[in-house]
Amino acid sequence: MQTKAYAAQSSSTPLALTTIERREPGAKDVAIEILYCGVCHSDLHTARGEWAGVRFPSVPGHEIIGRVTSVGGDVSKFKAGDIVGVGCMVGSCRECSSCNHDLEQYCRGPNGFQGTYNGWAHSSDENTYGGYSAAIVVDEHFVLQIRHQESDLAAAAPLLCAGITTWSPLRHWNAGPGKKVGVVGIGGLGHMGVKLARALGAHVVAFTTSPDKREAALALGAHEVVVSKNAQEMAAHTDSFDLILDTVAASHNLDAFTSLLKLDGTLTLVGVPETPHPSPSVGGIIFGRKSIAGSLIGGIAETQEMLDFCAEHGIVSDVEMIKMQDIDNAYDRMLKSDVKYRFVIDMATL
Amino acid sequence: MQTKAYAAQSSSTPLALTTIERREPGAKDVAIEILYCGVCHSDLHTARGEWAGVRFPSVPGHEIIGRVTSVGGDVSKFKAGDIVGVGCMVGSCRECSSCNHDLEQYCRGPNGFQGTYNGWAHSSDENTYGGYSAAIVVDEHFVLQIRHQESDLAAAAPLLCAGITTWSPLRHWNAGPGKKVGVVGIGGLGHMGVKLARALGAHVVAFTTSPDKREAALALGAHEVVVSKNAQEMAAHTDSFDLILDTVAASHNLDAFTSLLKLDGTLTLVGVPETPHPSPSVGGIIFGRKSIAGSLIGGIAETQEMLDFCAEHGIVSDVEMIKMQDIDNAYDRMLKSDVKYRFVIDMATL
Repeated sequence: MQTKAYAAQSSSTPLALTTIERREPGAKDVAIEILYCGVCHSDLHTARGEWAGVRFPSVPGHEIIGRVTSVGGDVSKFKAGDIVGVGCMVGSCRECSSCNHDLEQYCRGPNGFQGTYNGWAHSSDENTYGGYSAAIVVDEHFVLQIRHQESDLAAAAPLLCAGITTWSPLRHWNAGPGKKVGVVGIGGLGHMGVKLARALGAHVVAFTTSPDKREAALALGAHEVVVSKNAQEMAAHTDSFDLILDTVAASHNLDAFTSLLKLDGTLTLVGVPETPHPSPSVGGIIFGRKSIAGSLIGGIAETQEMLDFCAEHGIVSDVEMIKMQDIDNAYDRMLKSDVKYRFVIDMATL
Repeated sequence: MQTKAYAAQSSSTPLALTTIERREPGAKDVAIEILYCGVCHSDLHTARGEWAGVRFPSVPGHEIIGRVTSVGGDVSKFKAGDIVGVGCMVGSCRECSSCNHDLEQYCRGPNGFQGTYNGWAHSSDENTYGGYSAAIVVDEHFVLQIRHQESDLAAAAPLLCAGITTWSPLRHWNAGPGKKVGVVGIGGLGHMGVKLARALGAHVVAFTTSPDKREAALALGAHEVVVSKNAQEMAAHTDSFDLILDTVAASHNLDAFTSLLKLDGTLTLVGVPETPHPSPSVGGIIFGRKSIAGSLIGGIAETQEMLDFCAEHGIVSDVEMIKMQDIDNAYDRMLKSDVKYRFVIDMATL
């Protein structure tokens, strides 16, 4: 199936219109017309070849909302016309202990999980092409039901990566009533972290380096906002957090946040910095039996759980719609944090 | 009460015989004649003024075994003649949430816990004098029953610090049947970690940098021994550990161990390095939802639990007895790791 797409042919060429080949839908496959695709920082890193192992041509995009156009004979969960989502994964081994526990993102098969773009994590044999395209074919196991209102569909796209990346650790570390949860960084991920932690019933504190984001963070649902460069504001929260979800990928001082955890508290990192964080203080975690943990996107079952929760609570991302042709400008604005809070491509413009 | 003790008068003078003042036993106090005192690395750091905030004169020693000589009128748990232990703490606020959960080592009172030597953690008003002395007076809450055979009493002394420092994280992170547990560093702490993890029913792997410690680690109870400098031996254990207990305080590469953790595994540090560890890889914990955690000694209730478990299972430390007068030589040998695995002072030699 010839499919229109926007692709980077190399790390030094901008994304441009091209044609890619999609497989014919198999018995377990769902064919999807893509309506909207969110723009993630990973797209930028990949398209510009900033990460090791990028396969070109590269078609980014893993926050996909679309409409089912046809389904294979063995597909039971979807039918033509359904509104569906596709996130960061389109395959995994389906038989390891991680996959058997609905944690496909930690697939222990020899190839790891199969990314929606850039292929298998641990194999260079085959590329995959993401959501900056007119259509995609995905095994039904990796397709999600979208139950949001039609007017919310574009803004629901970032739930497929930004949403689940924050939801999974919030759920794993039991964010909810009676818990005090911090969210560090109010960007694409962080703004979803604040919304989701609030909706889960936690007391939510947003951390930002920018005093001018204070009102916006409160509007997103934070009960309190702390300017992390203000030592006095930070000190007022010493020894008080059950969980701090740190969405900032840039290298920064983690001790400032471990010191705010209470006994048995966890600082969970979801971003990999280009240059390492300063080495965290061991004393800072020993005195209080604290943990520094990592979390990677989320499994398919919990992605569906998150999507259903968001549909029920009317939760979507705050988005700015762009045309496909404006993607490079959008990347440049993302690098300046000039977006509130996620770009979404209207794929009708392809 | 005038009491003979060995004290450092300053960071530059060796320990020497002196006389200290002990308080008259109050209603809740237990007066103890000290029989044996284990020698911990913290003693050395303190006596030689290598840590900030050392108060002189300094009488180290927090692995104390002794005999009760008298008890105050309100003491209910002990009577004269009982064999008892005193570990790293002799006081805490007794009313904060940590103390109320039997976690006095994480006391959130304004002064933190009161060390058996060097006073309160967060207050400089008052010094305390440790176990390198003829006698000590301790509130009964911080006194432990010792149920070991008389012939095991000297070797039981290191349980009060080295034992509980490894027991507490092993228990907190559920070391037991069906769990694979690593212990990094086969010294004073590590050799207890191996013995305790084995007795708790875990599959135990000892990590050492010294191939010549292999047989000794097996003799301590390790099911397997890995020479951590051998990349091939290390790689064979990738993605397999539930818990790795890292007892090495010297700066070292943590990524070598996080890579051996399986999904949701924890690397727990119990030593504070003088110079920071290389900053751990964030990718190394994100891919697998792994944690790097810290743990500090243990609470009084779990110390008693550990002591009773050890008495029941005949577990003690491997010790080398020394005279009080030989303490500086013992410190020098500790710095060369020339001890299997803990020095214990026979306080009859004072």
